[in-house]
Amino acid sequence: MGMKCIGVDIGGTSVKIGLFETTGELLDKWEVKTCKEDGGVNILPDVAASIRKKLDEMGLDLKKDITGAGMGVPGPVMPDGYVEVCVNLGWRDLNPQEELSSLLDGIPVKSGNDANVAALGEMWQGGGKGYKNLVMVTLGTGVGGGIILNEKIWTGEQGVGGEIGHIHVMEGEKEACNCGGHGCLEQVASATGIARTARRMLAADNRPSTLRSLKNISAKNVLDAAKAGDALALESLNKSCYYLGWALATISMVLDPQAFLIGGGVSKAGTFLTDIIKRYHDELSPMATKKADIVLAKLGNDAGIYGAAKLIIG
Amino acid sequence: MGMKCIGVDIGGTSVKIGLFETTGELLDKWEVKTCKEDGGVNILPDVAASIRKKLDEMGLDLKKDITGAGMGVPGPVMPDGYVEVCVNLGWRDLNPQEELSSLLDGIPVKSGNDANVAALGEMWQGGGKGYKNLVMVTLGTGVGGGIILNEKIWTGEQGVGGEIGHIHVMEGEKEACNCGGHGCLEQVASATGIARTARRMLAADNRPSTLRSLKNISAKNVLDAAKAGDALALESLNKSCYYLGWALATISMVLDPQAFLIGGGVSKAGTFLTDIIKRYHDELSPMATKKADIVLAKLGNDAGIYGAAKLIIG
Repeated sequence: MGMKCIGVDIGGTSVKIGLFETTGELLDKWEVKTCKEDGGVNILPDVAASIRKKLDEMGLDLKKDITGAGMGVPGPVMPDGYVEVCVNLGWRDLNPQEELSSLLDGIPVKSGNDANVAALGEMWQGGGKGYKNLVMVTLGTGVGGGIILNEKIWTGEQGVGGEIGHIHVMEGEKEACNCGGHGCLEQVASATGIARTARRMLAADNRPSTLRSLKNISAKNVLDAAKAGDALALESLNKSCYYLGWALATISMVLDPQAFLIGGGVSKAGTFLTDIIKRYHDELSPMATKKADIVLAKLGNDAGIYGAAKLIIG
Repeated sequence: MGMKCIGVDIGGTSVKIGLFETTGELLDKWEVKTCKEDGGVNILPDVAASIRKKLDEMGLDLKKDITGAGMGVPGPVMPDGYVEVCVNLGWRDLNPQEELSSLLDGIPVKSGNDANVAALGEMWQGGGKGYKNLVMVTLGTGVGGGIILNEKIWTGEQGVGGEIGHIHVMEGEKEACNCGGHGCLEQVASATGIARTARRMLAADNRPSTLRSLKNISAKNVLDAAKAGDALALESLNKSCYYLGWALATISMVLDPQAFLIGGGVSKAGTFLTDIIKRYHDELSPMATKKADIVLAKLGNDAGIYGAAKLIIG
């Protein structure tokens, strides 16, 4: 057993890999291209070869210096590591954690869903450092979630635990969500949802707004305009944050976490965003004398490799 | 260490006590009056005396035959057993679990909040037998909740975990909830809430209903009338169950439990009630391929002593 470990974050375009001290220090990080051809059969051999090459360069020995490797997978992972299907990678019916272990001379490998693993990473060395119970919310194309209870990932009975984006929040919403439901949080609070909410509001009346001069409105446009004082943009952002704050208030009444971590592209808006979310969260969780903190994630795209490393450290 | 244990459920009117085999068999149960005078100073001595008397009668020895005692307390309990305040009993600033232990020659005593302890009891020997992850919902004067994860009570950071009754569900509700919030689940789905919702609906128009002939409408009246086919009563009950089903669907997206257990006075309406709740829960949790079961609690008022016994068994 060595004092170093490896974190692997498998994405649809690239695989991020990090070499860590088991104390949490990132020694090196690099990427390899995700080769999705032939059902993604080369992904793990590529990862293993890349790890061996890096260790060679650094004069490290796989068996002597490396405690093990953790891995985030972009899809549902069973507790034993089994993956039934991983659409983004072309994987079907395999156990990537067993496979990577055997490709790395049998060193221990553990795996989990990438959103959950990122939440674990943020708890360990990111915005969630010092918290043991937290919920991470990733505001990107969709709304992802990861739940950490007593410093461990909570996935629930069938891995649906933490599917915060699909909490129903909007009564009477007619448009369907990707999940088949209607009125999911993702439809109003993701990057896509923030832009969509603003477009709807612009279409509803003729109020002036700097957003009207733009051709394709993005979440960033809405956030920037709101920051700059555009009344309609701020009203629209408030609506998105109201539903998000409401969903988090519900989670506070159920799980009573110490903190919510806000990550993903939208979170670049910083405390301007989290302050609005917090206002609604606090208003709608009256039972909590001490309100949960609402803080920004810090590790960005590195959260996955940190969390993967933490998975194997335990 | 013996093979028997004791479960104590402290209520505002009476204390229920049960003697159990550690395998789960209830050997005897009895009650003592809750003496709330003088800040409830006599409650625990009364309980201890009653337990000693019962053991004497049965020829059992406290130290030799009893593994320990568990206790449910009607208020917030810290992880070390400390109770800052328990309004219903007059308790302030004490550790009832340490006190009961010293009153019982130092046998181990563990304690928890009574709603959570009841959920544990239902998981162990009631409607939740066979489940490891469940959420219990008690529909009484209020709406109580208890969360069991991996067979253990989850209370969250400050004991607010499982406060399902105070999930915000009704936008625009003007009337205040006991908690200070507005639009809490408790305001529409508790026994009080079910009756209130029906009264509001009756006041809104002149539609005929058998409920109109009643002076004080109770939840039981609404449930009975709905079962008997009264259209307005059914519409009102559907509304209450819609909000409850919605709240449970949200919990499914967050925790992904195996089951929800419905208990409390309202649950006497049986599967007529749980079928309606399930319809809304399933509709509003589209991400879950296997929907959580919605089942009836079984132990009634005994859930507390079962759960208390299970607390000490671990």
